[in-house]
Amino acid sequence: MNKKMNLLMFSGDYDKVLAALILANTARELEVDVTMFFAFWGLFIIRDPEKATLADKTVYEKMFGMVTPKGPEELPLSKMNMVGLGKQMLLEMMEDDKTPSLTDFLNGARKKGVKFYGCKLSVEVMGFKEEELLPEVEIITAKDYLINALDSDMQLFI
Amino acid sequence: MNKKMNLLMFSGDYDKVLAALILANTARELEVDVTMFFAFWGLFIIRDPEKATLADKTVYEKMFGMVTPKGPEELPLSKMNMVGLGKQMLLEMMEDDKTPSLTDFLNGARKKGVKFYGCKLSVEVMGFKEEELLPEVEIITAKDYLINALDSDMQLFI
Amino acid sequence: MNKKMNLLMFSGDYDKVLAALILANTARELEVDVTMFFAFWGLFIIRDPEKATLADKTVYEKMFGMVTPKGPEELPLSKMNMVGLGKQMLLEMMEDDKTPSLTDFLNGARKKGVKFYGCKLSVEVMGFKEEELLPEVEIITAKDYLINALDSDMQLFI
Repeated sequence: MNKKMNLLMFSGDYDKVLAALILANTARELEVDVTMFFAFWGLFIIRDPEKATLADKTVYEKMFGMVTPKGPEELPLSKMNMVGLGKQMLLEMMEDDKTPSLTDFLNGARKKGVKFYGCKLSVEVMGFKEEELLPEVEIITAKDYLINALDSDMQLFI
Repeated sequence: MNKKMNLLMFSGDYDKVLAALILANTARELEVDVTMFFAFWGLFIIRDPEKATLADKTVYEKMFGMVTPKGPEELPLSKMNMVGLGKQMLLEMMEDDKTPSLTDFLNGARKKGVKFYGCKLSVEVMGFKEEELLPEVEIITAKDYLINALDSDMQLFI
Repeated sequence: MNKKMNLLMFSGDYDKVLAALILANTARELEVDVTMFFAFWGLFIIRDPEKATLADKTVYEKMFGMVTPKGPEELPLSKMNMVGLGKQMLLEMMEDDKTPSLTDFLNGARKKGVKFYGCKLSVEVMGFKEEELLPEVEIITAKDYLINALDSDMQLFI
């Protein structure tokens, strides 16, 4: 039976998400079952940049949706972001080394069968609609997450 | 035998604590044994807002105690706090969805038998007195934490 | 057989690193096998302060190497750093309690046989040379990390 890895994606920082997606892709190459559960700021990672909508949202939900990152490439760094300057530097350094982009790793994870789950409570509080997220994403509860995580060989809070 | 979950509460950010307490409450509903070990900034979560004292503290401990959050509702967000504006927005969005408050989840965890431990070294360095913390909190060492964590089915650093 | 603990050192914050190294030292006293995998900002922890070099680096790598912390004592706090003021306060409070310094805990971990690994991709992107890191550090891939972590009794992302 395959080993299982469960990642709770909480922070939505560009650098942490990059690390998590590298782990997810690598784990799939090792035939490890990978589950990513996106909650709070982590939901920004799986917003489909083309599908943002204002329909059927409260004023706060509209404002919140507009001032927050729309998809993976807009995520800030967890530190040294310096209004985008530090992030730009990191991107240049990645390009110099021919490292794939965050979107490449995200698409890799989607193709390799990483399971994507969105946190029901977070989706409701932040006012996201299921159709604003990537089509692979299934909305589940904290209970569903816990049952999966407790049955995994490793769990990280990222 | 019950499954076991061990959470190391390090950050003391409002949003991360909310996520952790939702997991703790949900885990108890699944009859999972839950241990929360509060260290460093995590100690602010279990300060009893009514019991802050200046007695028997050094100048630094007094200053530190005064400029830091007194209890769960004063905790800042991990990001987009924007001098409290982002947090206020989140609180409004939570209220719109009738989500219970952080204090509700904390009291739920206390009633449901989540075990609360405070880190001995952190308590000493920050100068907190045991009577300034919630009555459920027992002070233990890093060694006690590790023995518990290594024997658990999942561990998160939050 | 010994229990195993695997720590993914991502953040490079003074306070988080302090917590992680206290856990690592304590785990070794319990005869737990300890692996620390340093990635991204975590690499700053294992830079040898005496061995920084500019040779054979791109412009970005040189700039990046210069504006980032050189070794453990230069790391900032994860919060309340306040341009070093909050950190100074923490250091004074630690000294009042005769708590060993971060460097003491790092050297303790080195002496007690904690295994130190650096992330290959991070080292390449950030342009660090192996000789700029502590001599114990071995450079490994994300795949090597995962194989170790999946075989451990607990894993934390710090």
